[in-house]
Amino acid sequence: MREFDESSITDAVVARMAGSRSERTRQISEALVRHLHAFVREIRPSPAEWEAGIGFLTATGQKCDDQRQEFILLSDTLGVSTLVDAINNPVSGDVTETTVFGPFYVPPPEFGHGDDIGTAIEGLPMLVSGRVRKASGAAASGAIVDVWHSDEAGFYDVQQMDKTGGLAGRGRFTADADGAFHFWTRRPAAYPIPTDGPVGAMLAAQGRHPWRPEHIHFKITAPGCRPLVTHVFAQGDVYLDSDVVFGVKESLIQPYVIHPSGDVAQGRTMSGTWVSLDHTFVLDDQRQA
Amino acid sequence: MREFDESSITDAVVARMAGSRSERTRQISEALVRHLHAFVREIRPSPAEWEAGIGFLTATGQKCDDQRQEFILLSDTLGVSTLVDAINNPVSGDVTETTVFGPFYVPPPEFGHGDDIGTAIEGLPMLVSGRVRKASGAAASGAIVDVWHSDEAGFYDVQQMDKTGGLAGRGRFTADADGAFHFWTRRPAAYPIPTDGPVGAMLAAQGRHPWRPEHIHFKITAPGCRPLVTHVFAQGDVYLDSDVVFGVKESLIQPYVIHPSGDVAQGRTMSGTWVSLDHTFVLDDQRQA
Repeated sequence: MREFDESSITDAVVARMAGSRSERTRQISEALVRHLHAFVREIRPSPAEWEAGIGFLTATGQKCDDQRQEFILLSDTLGVSTLVDAINNPVSGDVTETTVFGPFYVPPPEFGHGDDIGTAIEGLPMLVSGRVRKASGAAASGAIVDVWHSDEAGFYDVQQMDKTGGLAGRGRFTADADGAFHFWTRRPAAYPIPTDGPVGAMLAAQGRHPWRPEHIHFKITAPGCRPLVTHVFAQGDVYLDSDVVFGVKESLIQPYVIHPSGDVAQGRTMSGTWVSLDHTFVLDDQRQA
Repeated sequence: MREFDESSITDAVVARMAGSRSERTRQISEALVRHLHAFVREIRPSPAEWEAGIGFLTATGQKCDDQRQEFILLSDTLGVSTLVDAINNPVSGDVTETTVFGPFYVPPPEFGHGDDIGTAIEGLPMLVSGRVRKASGAAASGAIVDVWHSDEAGFYDVQQMDKTGGLAGRGRFTADADGAFHFWTRRPAAYPIPTDGPVGAMLAAQGRHPWRPEHIHFKITAPGCRPLVTHVFAQGDVYLDSDVVFGVKESLIQPYVIHPSGDVAQGRTMSGTWVSLDHTFVLDDQRQA
């Protein structure tokens, strides 16, 4: 087969993939070629624009290392991560909605109820309490609750290990017989995603800000339930309507309640302003996959 | 704007790009999002498949260095380079057809007519002659002819500088008053594109061979003419119908003529088998851009 023009080239490439190792590989390869060619035919790139595209993808790959995943940032900021999440986690009754995983998860150290996971980071003292139940009604006793969040400057521990001296602002808790858990930490903050790479340059060219609204990440698993990956966002945050990664859902917004000094919380008399958050998580025990 | 599902997310992302720095940036960004989301909606990737995609793109970027451009290989093997070439270089009368640029061009050293550019590489002696004229009829006297090709093992100089000791199998010639040029070199060969990276793994998964048919690259420029980037392929090559980068065009295939020893070529009596190629190149002097 020879002599490809701008319409025949697509079928020619697709035909070349007919002998793929698996049907799924063939399906993905063919769809990629059809959609990628349709994109190119629509924008009709000049040779210089094609080179710029090659350069952008190359720089994005080369920005990645153990601490940084620039292609996940690209997926997040182009709405692809939210789309993949929506495809894999359709809304189901009162099951807690999911949102993007983000690039900052690492398996956290274990803590007990009432422990403080924020001793190595800066911010207002914050009490987080919650409970986990199954959509069918019962408490999810023994559920494993992984939590992670930024400090008050918007940085995660893994972005500043020289400062925190190890993991901080993250922990693993085991829900009690009633599915409940609580812990102390420091209030996080809204923050910009890293902008010193190709994705930052893209956002600037697109006239977009790089901010995410204040949130805490949760990953919750329990036997017989579908794993839940989600955030709880701070009510009133100025970036709720323009989260750069399109992760906000109305049902995931909660008040981060501010309390004056002198109040007693979980047996502690507080010497300054502090914050509390409470949320109930509902796991899907119908659909486990 | 909140609460995106798998159809509303696309418009939300597109809307976010309305303030792009230029209309062209907005146009490209929006088209990218629409086509990329359509691809994702069609294949419905699992979280593991999305991760594999992120991993593939990351590895492709990280395989790139001064000697290797894996994203150009990806563009070439997905037919994107040929599509971009077709969009930018529509067929026009008897103007010589273009094909892909490839990743191995570097500005070549200058030579005179009859010089040998292949002294540092292995292969059968080969005499290449040609002439350059304009579509309107006149000889393109003074045209600059850049030539580059592999050795008989299929490797370019830049892939084996330790062996060739510098640039080899490439040169720049200035066409004479009649638009003619000729030079000696060594016969190149069909070759596989590099398969030790993500693109090689992709081709294997897609059940495709990595070969390109034997060819010599030409880049020809002349005042008042559109620059020409093309190959001349060897007639009869087994890979003409399945070039891994979809670069072959019927009009670019020529006999690589084999001659016995004893023949006289350009005043030299040849002591062994040798090869000749002759081709006429026609430049577009109507459309210069």
